[in-house]
Amino acid sequence: MKYCSECGHPVTNRVPEGDNRPRYVCDQCQTIHYRNPNIIAGTLPVWEDKVLLCKRAIEPRYGTWTLPAGFMELGETMEQAALRESEEEACANVAIDDIYTLISLPHVNQVYVLYRARLLDLDFCAGDESLEVRLFSEAEIPWQQLAFRTIHYTLEKYFSDRLLGHFSIYTHTINTNNRAPQEKEPVSS
Amino acid sequence: MKYCSECGHPVTNRVPEGDNRPRYVCDQCQTIHYRNPNIIAGTLPVWEDKVLLCKRAIEPRYGTWTLPAGFMELGETMEQAALRESEEEACANVAIDDIYTLISLPHVNQVYVLYRARLLDLDFCAGDESLEVRLFSEAEIPWQQLAFRTIHYTLEKYFSDRLLGHFSIYTHTINTNNRAPQEKEPVSS
Repeated sequence: MKYCSECGHPVTNRVPEGDNRPRYVCDQCQTIHYRNPNIIAGTLPVWEDKVLLCKRAIEPRYGTWTLPAGFMELGETMEQAALRESEEEACANVAIDDIYTLISLPHVNQVYVLYRARLLDLDFCAGDESLEVRLFSEAEIPWQQLAFRTIHYTLEKYFSDRLLGHFSIYTHTINTNNRAPQEKEPVSS
Repeated sequence: MKYCSECGHPVTNRVPEGDNRPRYVCDQCQTIHYRNPNIIAGTLPVWEDKVLLCKRAIEPRYGTWTLPAGFMELGETMEQAALRESEEEACANVAIDDIYTLISLPHVNQVYVLYRARLLDLDFCAGDESLEVRLFSEAEIPWQQLAFRTIHYTLEKYFSDRLLGHFSIYTHTINTNNRAPQEKEPVSS
């Protein structure tokens, strides 16, 4: 951030009075520009013993497999965001069962919120941001070609819980301490 | 938003190519300025049969009672944000037990994430944003002077679950359809 989005004056990065961390502040109109983490909402759509994955048609991680998920928009609930992303990326008609994984990614200022969901029919197809959408049994999951650690973690938990016959809700943190060297997380948009 | 925060040029509000909703776009440097909901993280600190509440020293809802909670900052996990807010608002030394309520407030573009927590000692005190901090038994809760519906909902669930002897995790939506007329939600900062 270089300019005030309210008045166009250059901003300075300093700790405002009564605050304890640096913010972009406009000395012309006095606006303090707060920046906060973003939520990425999505689903883990299930059909019989299979789960739906999307092959990414966009960067980052073009060509790798992911669950349908994306940035929550203004005016949405988390569930609405998860359903919208499932529809946009996989044309998938799903019903949410329950919240499943909540993953903080402090190094990229993101929080993933993924829901277990039922695929209601087989009329899915690749949306604009997907090259391909298909169902995978556990044995078929392309573990080495998953897009993000959030997806890897969520699928691991899912198959493990399914074996146990009971689904919990998981909160987890992924950061640079446990990041594989070759992996890149999506940047906040 | 009136000016591009990257180059200072006036922005226009339109649907960018390949998108499906209006964004603030800079026609000078081509930056698309995304805006997304914010997370408010906090705790429900428990000591024996009592819970800790803070009397707000700031607007909105000055003078009403709330759980320690506030905007999640860049670089934090949700748990870190919840602990920091507990320390800042109530000088409270707490340990998180588990995530408890996840509440979407689409009309103000917020998501509340509140954790059940144990107060580790009685050395709490009012932080800069609190007039007073004290423990309340269920019978003492000032239900009519609670700051936000998110707090009301979370405390209701807590006392109901405690009676049952089992704590669930709740996802919920609060919007203008179920808002009391006199109530004001905090605005996104």
